[in-house]
Amino acid sequence: MNNVSENIRWHDHAVQRKQRSEQKQQLPCMIWMTGLSGAGKSSVANALDALLLENGKHTYLLDGDNVRHGLNRDLGFSNTDRVENIRRIGEVGKLFVDAGLIVLSAFISPFRSDRQMVRTLFPEGEFIEVHISTSLAVCEKRDPKGLYKKARDGKIKNFTGIDSAYEAPSDPEILIDAGDLSIEKSADLIYTYLQSHGYV
Amino acid sequence: MNNVSENIRWHDHAVQRKQRSEQKQQLPCMIWMTGLSGAGKSSVANALDALLLENGKHTYLLDGDNVRHGLNRDLGFSNTDRVENIRRIGEVGKLFVDAGLIVLSAFISPFRSDRQMVRTLFPEGEFIEVHISTSLAVCEKRDPKGLYKKARDGKIKNFTGIDSAYEAPSDPEILIDAGDLSIEKSADLIYTYLQSHGYV
Repeated sequence: MNNVSENIRWHDHAVQRKQRSEQKQQLPCMIWMTGLSGAGKSSVANALDALLLENGKHTYLLDGDNVRHGLNRDLGFSNTDRVENIRRIGEVGKLFVDAGLIVLSAFISPFRSDRQMVRTLFPEGEFIEVHISTSLAVCEKRDPKGLYKKARDGKIKNFTGIDSAYEAPSDPEILIDAGDLSIEKSADLIYTYLQSHGYV
Repeated sequence: MNNVSENIRWHDHAVQRKQRSEQKQQLPCMIWMTGLSGAGKSSVANALDALLLENGKHTYLLDGDNVRHGLNRDLGFSNTDRVENIRRIGEVGKLFVDAGLIVLSAFISPFRSDRQMVRTLFPEGEFIEVHISTSLAVCEKRDPKGLYKKARDGKIKNFTGIDSAYEAPSDPEILIDAGDLSIEKSADLIYTYLQSHGYV
């Protein structure tokens, strides 16, 4: 038995990206939600995730809950670690897209350079940046976790929007002010984009 | 509008693990192939992956090709980096299982403690260790990438099986000698295991 040629033969059998996409009847992509704390990123992502599933689509949602306590548990909040946090989320998203899934992510990701780095991991059209642009005033008024108050009181340092910058995307694929729009309508809006661009 | 309660309402909509699994009509799990270089891990994994797809299952394969050059590109081959390499693969596998997929991985992963660490990330029954136990003699004779020769000549250091230990699993879920068994039969054997244990 010639094992070398057998290896080659079997590697030809490798399940290809295209087959995975066809099986799931969707164009895989990474939907990257960015915005201030309290803007509604997770809520919109969860609503969109549910909407996609209802319509038979195959998805996954990356957020602080499943990433920070697992894959990225070794990372802190230094500048280096912050960049590495976003890099790994991008790389994992890329693996999920390769697996044929529509991936949603919900992270503040305040810096343009970090988001740009992730965008470059994907071919044109596979990275969809969604700016949840709810204003600081609205986010701070909501303050669901009491973090803005702590930041204003100086108990949290480098809090985005207070004493650390949020660099808004200059040209996001989708722009949603979830201060004006309900969570449900925001999710619908992204779903409509996915339909009109042939992803679903 | 009470945004706090709206957030809670929408988080209740979160797509749950169970729904993802039902949608895909399979029990998600991580199939962890371990064995010497040249044992046939990647070949068997690719064949199994193709077989699962043919049967309408939703899978993903993690291997050196898609992990080492992406997510783990910052890691070298020091002891610390080796452990971190396996840890991240385990954590990413866990995310894929959470997404409802059957995940295959093909890495030498020579140390029992590293594999045990990954096993503990999963609930009972979701981690399936497959020892591809092809003997060193057979692997070295195959030597598809010429690595054994280089290791024997001292041109590669710490090569598993030559000057670094391979710690065989003491109690793997599946044991396959792919020196005796063809790639196709090896994949069939794992598939039969998945069927008889209700994963597919």
